[in-house]
Amino acid sequence: MTTILPLGLLDKAISSRVWILMKDDREFEGTLRGFDDFFNMVLENVIELDNGKKNKLEQILLNGTQICLIIPGGEIS
Amino acid sequence: MTTILPLGLLDKAISSRVWILMKDDREFEGTLRGFDDFFNMVLENVIELDNGKKNKLEQILLNGTQICLIIPGGEIS
Amino acid sequence: MTTILPLGLLDKAISSRVWILMKDDREFEGTLRGFDDFFNMVLENVIELDNGKKNKLEQILLNGTQICLIIPGGEIS
Amino acid sequence: MTTILPLGLLDKAISSRVWILMKDDREFEGTLRGFDDFFNMVLENVIELDNGKKNKLEQILLNGTQICLIIPGGEIS
Amino acid sequence: MTTILPLGLLDKAISSRVWILMKDDREFEGTLRGFDDFFNMVLENVIELDNGKKNKLEQILLNGTQICLIIPGGEIS
Amino acid sequence: MTTILPLGLLDKAISSRVWILMKDDREFEGTLRGFDDFFNMVLENVIELDNGKKNKLEQILLNGTQICLIIPGGEIS
Amino acid sequence: MTTILPLGLLDKAISSRVWILMKDDREFEGTLRGFDDFFNMVLENVIELDNGKKNKLEQILLNGTQICLIIPGGEIS
Repeated sequence: MTTILPLGLLDKAISSRVWILMKDDREFEGTLRGFDDFFNMVLENVIELDNGKKNKLEQILLNGTQICLIIPGGEIS
Repeated sequence: MTTILPLGLLDKAISSRVWILMKDDREFEGTLRGFDDFFNMVLENVIELDNGKKNKLEQILLNGTQICLIIPGGEIS
Repeated sequence: MTTILPLGLLDKAISSRVWILMKDDREFEGTLRGFDDFFNMVLENVIELDNGKKNKLEQILLNGTQICLIIPGGEIS
Repeated sequence: MTTILPLGLLDKAISSRVWILMKDDREFEGTLRGFDDFFNMVLENVIELDNGKKNKLEQILLNGTQICLIIPGGEIS
Repeated sequence: MTTILPLGLLDKAISSRVWILMKDDREFEGTLRGFDDFFNMVLENVIELDNGKKNKLEQILLNGTQICLIIPGGEIS
Repeated sequence: MTTILPLGLLDKAISSRVWILMKDDREFEGTLRGFDDFFNMVLENVIELDNGKKNKLEQILLNGTQICLIIPGGEIS
Repeated sequence: MTTILPLGLLDKAISSRVWILMKDDREFEGTLRGFDDFFNMVLENVIELDNGKKNKLEQILLNGTQICLIIPGGEIS
C-alpha cells in the first residue's frame, strides 16, 4: 500500500468533485480548482448546504483554518 | 483545466465585486481593492449584512483570521 | 484602479479617525496614531461603545488578534 | 522500554486501522494512508460516527488542527 | 502628529498605571513594570476587577494572548 | 532546588504512569511512551475517563494543543 | 524603577510559591520548579482549586497556552 500524503490527495483531486465540511458545519461540494499549503481552497460549480438550504455558487475561496475535513468525490446527499 | 491558486483567485478579483462571509456570520459585499498573504482584505463601496440589517460603508479592512469564505462576483441577496 | 494593501490603508489612516469592531462586538472610534504588522493599534481621543454604553478614553492599545474589522473615517452612530 | 515518538506511532500505523476523535466529538475509523507534520491525515474505507449515525466514506482528509486524539487499531464500537 | 507604535506606547507606560481588559472580561489596573514582544505583561500594586469584586494583588504576569486592550493611565472606575 | 524544565519533566516520566487532562475535560491515565516538542504524547495501557465512564485503550496519540495539564504518576481516582 | 521582563519575573519566582489561573478558571498554587519560553510550567506541592474543590498534587506540568495569569507568592484563599 503506497502512502498518500495530504497535499498529494489534494493534488490528485484537482479538477474533480470534492465535498468539504467546515468547522461551523457548513458543507460545500464543488470542483477543486486549486489549493495552497494552508489548505485554503478554490472550488467551482459549488453547492453550499447550510442548515438544510442548498445554494449554487460559481466560484468560492475557503479559508483553510475553517475547514474540518475534505472528501474527494464526496456528494452532498 | 488550469489550476487556480487561492491568492491567484484574489489577484484576479481585484477591482471587482466580492462577497465575504465572516466567522461570526457577518456578510460583506464590496469592491476588492487589495489583500495580503494573511487574507487581510481592503473593500470599497461596501454593503454590510448583519442580522438582516444592511449598512453602507465606504471602505473597510477585514482581519483575514476572521474570514470564513470569499465569493468573487457574489452579491448579497 | 490602484491596489490598496491592508497595511497601506492603515498607513494612510494615521492621524485620522477610524472605527474598529472587535471579535466580542465591542466598538471603538478614535484617531489612529500607530500600528504594527500584527494589526495591534494605538488610538487616541477614543469613544468606546460597549453594549450601548459610550465611554471616553484618552489613549488605548488594541490587541490585533481581537480585531474583526477597521473602517477608516468610520463614526460610531 | 523504547520511546515511541508521535510521528513514529503514525508511521507504524500506516496501512492499518486507526480511530480518530475530532474536537467537535465526531469519530472516524479508517485505514491510515498518510499524514504530514501537522497531523493532517488521509484515511480510506472510513466509517464516520456523528451523533450516533454511521456513514461510510471511501477516502477523507482530516485537518490536523481539528484532531483531538488517535487510537491505532481502534474500532468504533 | 508623530506615529505611536504599539510597543512604543508600552515602553512609555513603564512605571505608570495602566488598565487592562482581558478576553474573559476580567479587568486589571496596576503599575506596568515590563512586557515582551508577545504583550505578556508584568504589573505591580494591582487591583483586579472580576464580576464586580475587587482584589488587591502585589505583582502579576498576564499572558499576552488573553489581553484584549490596554489603556495607559486608565483607572478602574 | 534544581530547575525542572517542562520537557525535562516529560523525559523523566517516560515509561511511567501519567495522568492527562484535556481542554474538553476528558482525562487519560497511561504509561508515557514518547512525546515531541509540541506536547503531542504517546500513551499505552490507557484508562480514559469521559463523563464518568471508564474505557481501556491499548495505545493512543494525544494532540498537544488539546492538552491542559499533565501529572506524572497521577492516577484517575 | 527597573523594568521586570515577563521571563525575568518567572526566573525570580523559581523555587517559590506561585498562583496560576487557567483559561477555564481552574486555579493552581504550587512551588515553581521550571518553565520554558512558551509559559509551559512545572509546579510541585500543588493545591488545585476546581469549582471550590481542593486537590493536592505532587507535581504537574501546565500547558502555557491555557494559562491566563500568574501571581508570584499568591495563595489560594
